[in-house]
Amino acid sequence: MKQWIRWGLVLWLPLWLMACASDAPPLRGTGDLGVVIERASGSVSVVDTTRHSVLGSVPGLGDLSHASVVFSRDGAVAFVFGRDGALTRVNLLTRRIEGRVMQAGNSIGGAVSQDGRWVAAQNYQPGGIKVFRADTLALVADVPAEYAPGRFSRVVGLADLPGQRFIFSLFDADEIWIADLSRDAAHPAIQRFRDVGRQPYDALVTPDGRHYIAGLFGEDGLALIDLWQTAPRVRRILQGYGRGEQPLPVYKMPHLRGWAVAGRQVWLPAIGRHEVLVVDMDTWLEVGRVPVAGQPVFVMARPDGRQVWVNFAVPDYDRVQVIDTPSRQVVQTLSPGAAVLHMEFTPRGESVWISSRDANRVSVIDTQSFSTRSVLDVPAPSGIFFTSRAHRMGM
Amino acid sequence: MKQWIRWGLVLWLPLWLMACASDAPPLRGTGDLGVVIERASGSVSVVDTTRHSVLGSVPGLGDLSHASVVFSRDGAVAFVFGRDGALTRVNLLTRRIEGRVMQAGNSIGGAVSQDGRWVAAQNYQPGGIKVFRADTLALVADVPAEYAPGRFSRVVGLADLPGQRFIFSLFDADEIWIADLSRDAAHPAIQRFRDVGRQPYDALVTPDGRHYIAGLFGEDGLALIDLWQTAPRVRRILQGYGRGEQPLPVYKMPHLRGWAVAGRQVWLPAIGRHEVLVVDMDTWLEVGRVPVAGQPVFVMARPDGRQVWVNFAVPDYDRVQVIDTPSRQVVQTLSPGAAVLHMEFTPRGESVWISSRDANRVSVIDTQSFSTRSVLDVPAPSGIFFTSRAHRMGM
Repeated sequence: MKQWIRWGLVLWLPLWLMACASDAPPLRGTGDLGVVIERASGSVSVVDTTRHSVLGSVPGLGDLSHASVVFSRDGAVAFVFGRDGALTRVNLLTRRIEGRVMQAGNSIGGAVSQDGRWVAAQNYQPGGIKVFRADTLALVADVPAEYAPGRFSRVVGLADLPGQRFIFSLFDADEIWIADLSRDAAHPAIQRFRDVGRQPYDALVTPDGRHYIAGLFGEDGLALIDLWQTAPRVRRILQGYGRGEQPLPVYKMPHLRGWAVAGRQVWLPAIGRHEVLVVDMDTWLEVGRVPVAGQPVFVMARPDGRQVWVNFAVPDYDRVQVIDTPSRQVVQTLSPGAAVLHMEFTPRGESVWISSRDANRVSVIDTQSFSTRSVLDVPAPSGIFFTSRAHRMGM
Repeated sequence: MKQWIRWGLVLWLPLWLMACASDAPPLRGTGDLGVVIERASGSVSVVDTTRHSVLGSVPGLGDLSHASVVFSRDGAVAFVFGRDGALTRVNLLTRRIEGRVMQAGNSIGGAVSQDGRWVAAQNYQPGGIKVFRADTLALVADVPAEYAPGRFSRVVGLADLPGQRFIFSLFDADEIWIADLSRDAAHPAIQRFRDVGRQPYDALVTPDGRHYIAGLFGEDGLALIDLWQTAPRVRRILQGYGRGEQPLPVYKMPHLRGWAVAGRQVWLPAIGRHEVLVVDMDTWLEVGRVPVAGQPVFVMARPDGRQVWVNFAVPDYDRVQVIDTPSRQVVQTLSPGAAVLHMEFTPRGESVWISSRDANRVSVIDTQSFSTRSVLDVPAPSGIFFTSRAHRMGM
């Protein structure tokens, strides 16, 4: 008997221990997850927005000095676009890299198709877009931004449109293109809008997917396309929106991703002035200005549109201000930590997460009381992205 | 040696087989999951909206003849409210019931608080609301709808509001209450609006959380509260919106959940007429009517607001029509199967899922081409609810 027991323990015990020590992640939903870019270390932190915690850090993402993130349809995967042209699939549940493609020499971001099947990257070098299968990162289509024979433009302002399409701007060509993958994904049909204005440097799509707005570096005003028209065309809006009192270098021009849509109005950073502009989306005319503490960088709307939150460029980048949209008054000024780079609202808007790069922290702020509910230690945090973005268009 | 091997196999093999046959669910996101009510069997089907498949059926939910579903913040759990007063926690990943409370005699639905901590049920019997912890279903607060000493009203039109509040209507009291759990969840502060109109029978909150609209059974018109006002008050809108040419019984009155907000307009079923009404949300005046194939029941907007889809009451309940919102024209009529009970859009709007109770199927329709992309076998399907609802207010 004793020998039987001895053999049994020798054989069973290690196996049992291995099974118990299995590192399979616990079962959980993905709807309350997010990522924070650790810009100095080429890593991303995976965060839990219910428990206000960092679940872990995923290294090996390369140059994230300018990074953006979009999500798979089910919210389990983050697609990270790095400055060095890398596109990486990160599984948020396992916190492992599942795929990685060095798809360009220099790139600034991407988008996921409406149905979730494709992920597209916008590239400076070589200029154009590339479209990949979201599940495997296999290349599906390569669309060089060849606007004239042998001439390739840097691509900016990429966004997804309904119907398996992508829209983007060509900085060196003064054009806007729409690539339609619905019939033949490997050979998208291209619709070209020419002479849209000088040097479109960034763009956005309104949350309803109706309007594409491109900022122009080479002249005042912006280019607008109403995509719901039978024959869409480009028109100029906000003629006075320009370089401000002194021309800004292009890298200091406000990101259009820093615009907020709240109700029927768009709230956006003034250029070269310490103001937030309010624009009516029916007329595209300016209807107000709100004086703020510095040059605004990001103006972000709480999901219900009741507030917009503003962060600022150097030297005022330790502050954040809150504007009450009905009254257009600044109702709060906060100091969450030096070098506020990004803000992200939880999908129902009860909290906003703010990255303070030089304070190495992310603050979770209650949007009703403005109290700080939690502080997370994250080294040199920049962009914050929540999985709820998977359910929104134009992101 | 042989004996060693024999003992080894006897001891290892069963263990190894058990480990391999483990039924732990595979790792997956929850953002593309949903549930379909199987109204005849007291079960819910868990569906995958990426693969267009039924993952499995969860029995034991009781009387689902009138059921509604809300979701946990992370999208992994569905809270199912049955007619019999049961509130059940269903884990969508394991497809198991994790908790169940018989919390009333007769109930019609519930809501989750903005931060996801509480889930509230609206009850006919006893009249009032009950609030539970979302994670454990422990009772947190019991709020009888006692509008006069010893007199309790049936509660309808429950919705979540920002700031850990719930709003609801009292059918028998002609009142609307707001329960605020932010300071003392066990003893919510109650704000009462009296004499709102005769017999509010259903209500909705607009997607921005700003307006609460209650339908009135006892008189024409609706009650509206602008919750963003400093001192909100009730006003009457749509005075002509009433019982139609002949009074309808209350159970045939259109659900306000069958209203759609598209841009700045609300699209809603006419009462007793084969029309969809269009109302401007700034003036609350009717701005148009669209003739349709029958008495509308649900009017639902595609997420971008470009289309509204309409289903109908008996005898036209085998049809669905699509209205193009800019032109206000019916652009498509479909016949997905007899007894269309519900429609649900994927969060980015590329597809709509339609339940046809008498055809025992759910159809997945492409909203651009109107082609049927998939058909799922589900017995007597009624309500369809996707986890993306977890990220929206007022649902």
